[in-house]
Amino acid sequence: MSSQLGQLFRISTWGESHGGGVGVVIDGCPPLIDLAEADIQRDLDRRRPGQSEITTPRHEADAARILSGVFEGKTLGTPIAISVMNQDARPEAYREMETAFRPSHADYTTQAKFGIRNWQGGGRASARETIGRVAAGAVAKRVLASLAPGLEIVAYVKAIHTLEAAVDPATVTAEQVESNIVRCPDAEVAERMIEHIKRLRTEGDSAGGVIECVVRGVPPGLGEPVFDKLEADLAKAMLSLPATKGFEIGSGFAGARLTGAQHNDPFVIREGRVRTATNHSGGVQGGMSNGEDIFFRVAFKPTPTITRPQATVTVTGEETQLAARGRHDPCVVPRAVPIVEAMAALVLCDHALRQRGQCGRI
Amino acid sequence: MSSQLGQLFRISTWGESHGGGVGVVIDGCPPLIDLAEADIQRDLDRRRPGQSEITTPRHEADAARILSGVFEGKTLGTPIAISVMNQDARPEAYREMETAFRPSHADYTTQAKFGIRNWQGGGRASARETIGRVAAGAVAKRVLASLAPGLEIVAYVKAIHTLEAAVDPATVTAEQVESNIVRCPDAEVAERMIEHIKRLRTEGDSAGGVIECVVRGVPPGLGEPVFDKLEADLAKAMLSLPATKGFEIGSGFAGARLTGAQHNDPFVIREGRVRTATNHSGGVQGGMSNGEDIFFRVAFKPTPTITRPQATVTVTGEETQLAARGRHDPCVVPRAVPIVEAMAALVLCDHALRQRGQCGRI
Amino acid sequence: MSSQLGQLFRISTWGESHGGGVGVVIDGCPPLIDLAEADIQRDLDRRRPGQSEITTPRHEADAARILSGVFEGKTLGTPIAISVMNQDARPEAYREMETAFRPSHADYTTQAKFGIRNWQGGGRASARETIGRVAAGAVAKRVLASLAPGLEIVAYVKAIHTLEAAVDPATVTAEQVESNIVRCPDAEVAERMIEHIKRLRTEGDSAGGVIECVVRGVPPGLGEPVFDKLEADLAKAMLSLPATKGFEIGSGFAGARLTGAQHNDPFVIREGRVRTATNHSGGVQGGMSNGEDIFFRVAFKPTPTITRPQATVTVTGEETQLAARGRHDPCVVPRAVPIVEAMAALVLCDHALRQRGQCGRI
Amino acid sequence: MSSQLGQLFRISTWGESHGGGVGVVIDGCPPLIDLAEADIQRDLDRRRPGQSEITTPRHEADAARILSGVFEGKTLGTPIAISVMNQDARPEAYREMETAFRPSHADYTTQAKFGIRNWQGGGRASARETIGRVAAGAVAKRVLASLAPGLEIVAYVKAIHTLEAAVDPATVTAEQVESNIVRCPDAEVAERMIEHIKRLRTEGDSAGGVIECVVRGVPPGLGEPVFDKLEADLAKAMLSLPATKGFEIGSGFAGARLTGAQHNDPFVIREGRVRTATNHSGGVQGGMSNGEDIFFRVAFKPTPTITRPQATVTVTGEETQLAARGRHDPCVVPRAVPIVEAMAALVLCDHALRQRGQCGRI
Repeated sequence: MSSQLGQLFRISTWGESHGGGVGVVIDGCPPLIDLAEADIQRDLDRRRPGQSEITTPRHEADAARILSGVFEGKTLGTPIAISVMNQDARPEAYREMETAFRPSHADYTTQAKFGIRNWQGGGRASARETIGRVAAGAVAKRVLASLAPGLEIVAYVKAIHTLEAAVDPATVTAEQVESNIVRCPDAEVAERMIEHIKRLRTEGDSAGGVIECVVRGVPPGLGEPVFDKLEADLAKAMLSLPATKGFEIGSGFAGARLTGAQHNDPFVIREGRVRTATNHSGGVQGGMSNGEDIFFRVAFKPTPTITRPQATVTVTGEETQLAARGRHDPCVVPRAVPIVEAMAALVLCDHALRQRGQCGRI
Repeated sequence: MSSQLGQLFRISTWGESHGGGVGVVIDGCPPLIDLAEADIQRDLDRRRPGQSEITTPRHEADAARILSGVFEGKTLGTPIAISVMNQDARPEAYREMETAFRPSHADYTTQAKFGIRNWQGGGRASARETIGRVAAGAVAKRVLASLAPGLEIVAYVKAIHTLEAAVDPATVTAEQVESNIVRCPDAEVAERMIEHIKRLRTEGDSAGGVIECVVRGVPPGLGEPVFDKLEADLAKAMLSLPATKGFEIGSGFAGARLTGAQHNDPFVIREGRVRTATNHSGGVQGGMSNGEDIFFRVAFKPTPTITRPQATVTVTGEETQLAARGRHDPCVVPRAVPIVEAMAALVLCDHALRQRGQCGRI
Repeated sequence: MSSQLGQLFRISTWGESHGGGVGVVIDGCPPLIDLAEADIQRDLDRRRPGQSEITTPRHEADAARILSGVFEGKTLGTPIAISVMNQDARPEAYREMETAFRPSHADYTTQAKFGIRNWQGGGRASARETIGRVAAGAVAKRVLASLAPGLEIVAYVKAIHTLEAAVDPATVTAEQVESNIVRCPDAEVAERMIEHIKRLRTEGDSAGGVIECVVRGVPPGLGEPVFDKLEADLAKAMLSLPATKGFEIGSGFAGARLTGAQHNDPFVIREGRVRTATNHSGGVQGGMSNGEDIFFRVAFKPTPTITRPQATVTVTGEETQLAARGRHDPCVVPRAVPIVEAMAALVLCDHALRQRGQCGRI
Repeated sequence: MSSQLGQLFRISTWGESHGGGVGVVIDGCPPLIDLAEADIQRDLDRRRPGQSEITTPRHEADAARILSGVFEGKTLGTPIAISVMNQDARPEAYREMETAFRPSHADYTTQAKFGIRNWQGGGRASARETIGRVAAGAVAKRVLASLAPGLEIVAYVKAIHTLEAAVDPATVTAEQVESNIVRCPDAEVAERMIEHIKRLRTEGDSAGGVIECVVRGVPPGLGEPVFDKLEADLAKAMLSLPATKGFEIGSGFAGARLTGAQHNDPFVIREGRVRTATNHSGGVQGGMSNGEDIFFRVAFKPTPTITRPQATVTVTGEETQLAARGRHDPCVVPRAVPIVEAMAALVLCDHALRQRGQCGRI
């Protein structure tokens, strides 16, 4: 379904950027998991607008409220509904969008699909829709902490525009990521990224970038052998995020330029366990985790909302020009870091429960 | 579910490489579509082993039989079961795999997940599983020909190892693709690719590569705004193929290195229709098709089966060496071309039916 | 999934009787359907507690709020979230339930399944969960009015305890149903039912009953030939309602006592259309609607909450006695009439969209 | 989907009565379950035509072949494909059906839905479709034997036409059921049933009846609190069988005629476990099993195929007469006994795996 993800840990998000609010319903959460609103708020705060000088100035507290499914601090096993009310919506800033399609946004395709759209903001294509994902991802992390203790998900900015950071996925920490506002653990490059984003904003332009994510401590055997391969579900989850254009796992596109002898990961025994000597596979073989670190990269296009005038057309088919006036991010990548982590948590949590259902253990 | 794909046009594949056979059941196919076994066989013949000197010598006719769902040359609207019996299985060639895990194959992860595996071949991870996908994809193409006349899917080899072809997605034809055994429409590079693959095989090594796919004539509005974005479902479909490591649509990873002013696709009116002046979006905006060409690339790792000896471990945890003896492809990419087309057809057919269900038109 | 129903028109309900509120998210609703909160409120008012002297005195306005998916009075094709906040919850009335299981309620089984339960009311088993169903059913009715004009759903009380009404499904009207508080269109029997319910309440006892539902004007061909037969999905929808014990369609259990020659419905031509001379089939043959009236009956057990003391056990395994103090209905059947209609609307709406998706017409 | 059932243990059946064959694919079966073709054949033999003098004389061996998913006698956790080829199809006997619709069959509704039908037999509405269900049910029983040892499913003929048997669900055995060809454990009534069926056949008529099914040894907590209540999924499974008109669990329709004080099942402690003193609930409360015997009844209409001439219409809208010539059962109820058991096993197996997935135990 359009607005649902997951088989056993299934989320349904709802809400438009400029309707009453946004939210999520989580169906299938295991019972007896410790869960507080603060667990959710922590990740929402990393996602929310207005958090730093390189994000949109739209001010939203994004305060999450748990409406059901939790009793005396523990999950009941019943649907967990979480909602966040919109506060700082300014639909008047979108008045021009009633008639003109913003280039490289979803305005035209939404109109083409449904024959109607809420032009007061981005509708379902708005980044606000991801609030429900981040909230659900926070719950998924709590479940994973119970199912697979030691599992750890860390995402970070790997590149902004042409600036690329040097990061070791095996050792990078969440603290390093959160140590600067661009969420790049390479401190030196991070500073240049911040300056670069500010300059592009001044020029009425915007930047894209790449997020890398590593998952450590994954038990072997998660993922399914055919369509629901772990990398397939991760790819879908990431490409379902606004503004994404690519996904690669392990060696990725560079791996296509190696030979088999170079690329294969020899098996070895280390501390009594089956391990691989290298990790071109990125922690997944044949769609199932092999116990090594899972790491992947996601490409984000530059924010399409820019203040420079752009050529476009109107709903009635006339050519016109449009320059953004609504508040927006010159680069969505830093705020997308917790979103990528949330999507990874959702996929892994779902597969952990599926594994337990079919095979009786994780 | 592990072995199912699609919401309305749903396929279920079954079979192992060395069991009795492989097949697929298609549920939800529209009625009254013209369908013959020859429609299916045509694509299976492009996928089958032994078709040329750069593929595995395993000889399989891969003759498809339609067991249900078709009556007097037309689909009934009921499940279409298609099966292909295995003929040239040689389980004895896999005897060493009973005890040793092949590096970068699914042997170890299958054992870790299920606690059992059919070691007489690759089991579900075998390329033979894709027979069901190609057969179902051929049916999907017939349905699309009825739902969206003019829609055309062309995939081709864009790169093998470090050799890259120059191809214009806007004009490339299926005939050009099929004009050589490596399925690369750049004739000059194709020859070098063929030689290169042969040399790597002689060296006991293997190669990966990149497939590019273009879909022309897509009606605007296919795809869903949130999780089931068209690019998300395409990414999942492609990453569910054996040996894939990456997916990118439109500008892809390179797009992350552009600015918004460079990347945005201005809307224009052409022949009375809303079009874009450029196509960095790759035919999809906000998860929905915009009527422009959809094009994407898929990275394939080098075949892990190589004849050089490799380090690995046994089921009982001892280190050992393994050199492939089973027949295999030194490069799976040319045979994967019809498979990529099939997956694209399956995704588009499902979304076309979903669009008709929800919105009453395509 | 536990809290979801439907394939294309899919609803997810959430909320406990004594949490913050209850609600529903509808995914897959067609766009451009006229929808106002008043459309929903009308049916909620027929369901709400405190509406008459034979229902629970719990006072809930049950005011529905549409949070997303509607813009300027029309559906957007995006998820429609509807919530109703709880107002008159009195958890202290349920204090004894913290330790004792109410007989024939879900208290014990919830504890056995999840190892935890919200004892401050019935949790998910509460009749308040059906608010989301009724709200979603009101939306489904609007969609059906657009997809199948002339389709009409009328449910009514057929029996209370041993009192049975004489009603002609072919001609009964909604006005007749709503003309008395027990929702029985047989005015004379209705009066006796009302008196009987009052007397049972005075005696600290309760009653069950039977609801009959007729759907007129159904286009032929809705429903699927195998598992998702129309009667199968109706049966599931009805048996998913609290307190239901049975479902029968057309001739039902009485039909099992006829011979084929008596039971078969001969086909005839009437006004140029294929019709049946009799309707033992209840409007469905082979799982698909045949254009005749669909009619079915649902059995409701007597309300398990009674004020007489009953034997039961505590969470810690001691035998004890329990007498209800919470407010409750002496007979849920009159309030269940709009719920049965809602469930029928949800099933038919889903099947209408599925039919349009697969076959291109309804 | 039309031809799929189950969430985690999901079956897809395929095949028409007069196509090449019928079969089923089971997705999600746990690994390491002992499974042989003989396990499946045992139940198929109880279902197959020609097994006794009161069934159709159509002769089909219905020999099941496992095509995938099993290795060295154990399930692999991968899809299990099972097929049965048709042998004794006589399409010429159905020639009249090319133009005339058989009364109370699926001929007309299939044509109305799809605009096409395979008139050489009953197509998907044929009882042969249930072969896949019985085969999958046999696998489900093996899984249940592993997940819930002691769980036992026994179905039997409770009534044929107006003849009703006296059977105690608490003690009835499979041996008693199989001790006569009508599968009624009340030996005296069984004999009269057999004579009655023979007489009706001689008269060119047919009979319906009621099957009762008991499941003993069910662990508490199976089933979901809202839409996927155990009784809801059982009702759907049973009403998805050809010729069924009703379902009731526990007290059923008779329960609607009791008061709460009469109907409630008091909790007691017996042998240290929470039990109920009576079992009007039929082993399910609030949609979840409570550990008591689950028992339910299914109503079957009389076979619509009778040799007496009946009024009907042709595809082109002319009134005509039709008398069955194809081989058929004068009463399907005895052969439906193993089918009802299979459907119960499928539902319980699916819910057991779902319970293990969400709650980590069964």
